[in-house]
Amino acid sequence: MQRRVFLKGAAAAGAASTAAAGLAAPAIAQGRLEWRMVTTWPKNFPGLGTGAELLAQYITRASEGRLTIKVFGGGELVPPFEALDAVSSGTVEMGHGSPYYWKGKIPAVQFLTTFPFGLLPGEQNAWYQFGDGQKLADDIYKQMGCKFFPSGNSGTQMGGWFNKEINTLEDFKGLKMRIPGLGGEVIRAAGGNVVNLPGAEIPTALQSGAIDAVEWVGPYNDLAFGLYKSAKYYYWPGWHEPGSTLDNFINLAAWEKLPADLKAIVEQANTAVNQVVLSEFNARNGSSLQILLKDHNVQLRRFPDGVLQGLGKLSGEVLNDLAGKDPLSRTLMNSLLKFRVEQMPWTALGESGFAQARALPYPFAQPTPG
Amino acid sequence: MQRRVFLKGAAAAGAASTAAAGLAAPAIAQGRLEWRMVTTWPKNFPGLGTGAELLAQYITRASEGRLTIKVFGGGELVPPFEALDAVSSGTVEMGHGSPYYWKGKIPAVQFLTTFPFGLLPGEQNAWYQFGDGQKLADDIYKQMGCKFFPSGNSGTQMGGWFNKEINTLEDFKGLKMRIPGLGGEVIRAAGGNVVNLPGAEIPTALQSGAIDAVEWVGPYNDLAFGLYKSAKYYYWPGWHEPGSTLDNFINLAAWEKLPADLKAIVEQANTAVNQVVLSEFNARNGSSLQILLKDHNVQLRRFPDGVLQGLGKLSGEVLNDLAGKDPLSRTLMNSLLKFRVEQMPWTALGESGFAQARALPYPFAQPTPG
Repeated sequence: MQRRVFLKGAAAAGAASTAAAGLAAPAIAQGRLEWRMVTTWPKNFPGLGTGAELLAQYITRASEGRLTIKVFGGGELVPPFEALDAVSSGTVEMGHGSPYYWKGKIPAVQFLTTFPFGLLPGEQNAWYQFGDGQKLADDIYKQMGCKFFPSGNSGTQMGGWFNKEINTLEDFKGLKMRIPGLGGEVIRAAGGNVVNLPGAEIPTALQSGAIDAVEWVGPYNDLAFGLYKSAKYYYWPGWHEPGSTLDNFINLAAWEKLPADLKAIVEQANTAVNQVVLSEFNARNGSSLQILLKDHNVQLRRFPDGVLQGLGKLSGEVLNDLAGKDPLSRTLMNSLLKFRVEQMPWTALGESGFAQARALPYPFAQPTPG
Repeated sequence: MQRRVFLKGAAAAGAASTAAAGLAAPAIAQGRLEWRMVTTWPKNFPGLGTGAELLAQYITRASEGRLTIKVFGGGELVPPFEALDAVSSGTVEMGHGSPYYWKGKIPAVQFLTTFPFGLLPGEQNAWYQFGDGQKLADDIYKQMGCKFFPSGNSGTQMGGWFNKEINTLEDFKGLKMRIPGLGGEVIRAAGGNVVNLPGAEIPTALQSGAIDAVEWVGPYNDLAFGLYKSAKYYYWPGWHEPGSTLDNFINLAAWEKLPADLKAIVEQANTAVNQVVLSEFNARNGSSLQILLKDHNVQLRRFPDGVLQGLGKLSGEVLNDLAGKDPLSRTLMNSLLKFRVEQMPWTALGESGFAQARALPYPFAQPTPG
């Protein structure tokens, strides 16, 4: 997910930073607050930008406009990468993106999005809401002058589009792949040649052989982007991003000035959006996968067990390196790994155990036509 | 889940119905509404009753008390089974339970909770929020004089506690099992002797051999109930209830009188609670499973593939029977089955595919002590 979305907004960024310099203080008229939300997403980008819009609508409607949120796409007011700075400094009051975008400020923050071989969306939500997640995240965002809320989850990703088959871990050696973030570091550790490309250049690069593989998102966004036209194989599972959390960050002083009812409205709107965004990805990924398979004859491939085990081992090493560099990363990783140890057996018996049983061959009730 | 919770409240029910007859109209003072919420759960029953309390708190806080909700446990104002009648008639304004409790009024309603070999919680939420679910449910609840919201999901259940091993479908013949709802109908179709027992009698019945098996909920509630003391084997997966939706039902006239902002608050509070309840079950089931395995040496057993395939086939027959009886059940089932056909392959590649990869053996980062 990471850089690809930014790059689309980059063209608009130059003009936007000029505009940002001249922004007025937040308007308050007759006890009504008008807040601006800057986002890292292009306006109404499917699932992500639409999630930010939904959050704004929820807050505005529930407060009957006492707190009105106006959404700006990445680059409209400030460049996508500067969204957190704009909120932190009070230029605007609110932002929407994903924690790992702020790793340049506090490296530990990337654990708040997801990590390779980490937690599924439901497990991640459980960690935020019944583990240490909300508290740890609040501590980190406070250092950046912000209040934090989980504000959407984009679901489990696919493993990526490949023009070469992956049969052993050796096959990553020299493979030219566009894969950002921690997943990219793991592929690099496997000997891959990790490249970054603006989204618009990816299809041509795949077709010309300038790159061999690309990780984008999942069936919903990948279908819209037309990647099936440029790659032979669609690999699963998405070991590198099992369930990425989005963030809503609010200028801390602005947050603290809100009356209790508006605080409650903002918190509940975020919790609601957190679920609805995931529901949208679940629903659209399901229908889009069918279209990819039936209309576009996409060839699915599963990474072999040996490859996944190798990537798992390398992922552990990448995480240990990260946690070895600063105590805060270690704290975050420890909390997440302890939670993971409890969640894995339950998911194996519960949701995943059920899904495997349901997938066995047996005659079942069928929808009747019409 | 079904009847067990009711039975606990039955003792209190007699006194309660007398009280209900004398209820005053909803209090309105200085533009403030005070609503009563009756529930099917004992007050603060873990995960379920606490979910109803959370909903009341959310609405009350976000509206700054302009809409205050007071929660009554099952039997406190009206008997649990009469919660929907009390709301429908306007005796109280709001209720919390689960759709399948109202199957005596409209049989199709049980499809709104869950069905054997049906949808996982995330899939069910996607159906409600991006499929036909909310509209179909609203149509059904309107017939019962209510507005409907999904208001929590108790997650995938376990397969139950058994004192006999299940190796083939034949092993269900004559098996005395407490399992309510559609799951019970499937076990009956497999030749089982399905019995209903008040919750309090279950441990003794298991120990004496009066019953051979019992389906309760999952690790969190089962640990609290101490079922590990009375049964040899803890079976998985929970094929019969993959993700049960709870309902918030609101008297339709009371709902329609709400101003737009309070409507938005109630809707968003429900969507938020819908997620938080699931997070609580995920978190607590994870930690409780560890306690069952480590402290109580519980022996896990997986239903063999052949048994699951047999139960899957019988489940399809039970569903077809139900859908054959009335057009509304057919409509609900068709919508859910169409959604299931799209979701199953995506879940297999996505969440379930990831969970299987993560469970492979490989060295990984470990939480450091202290």
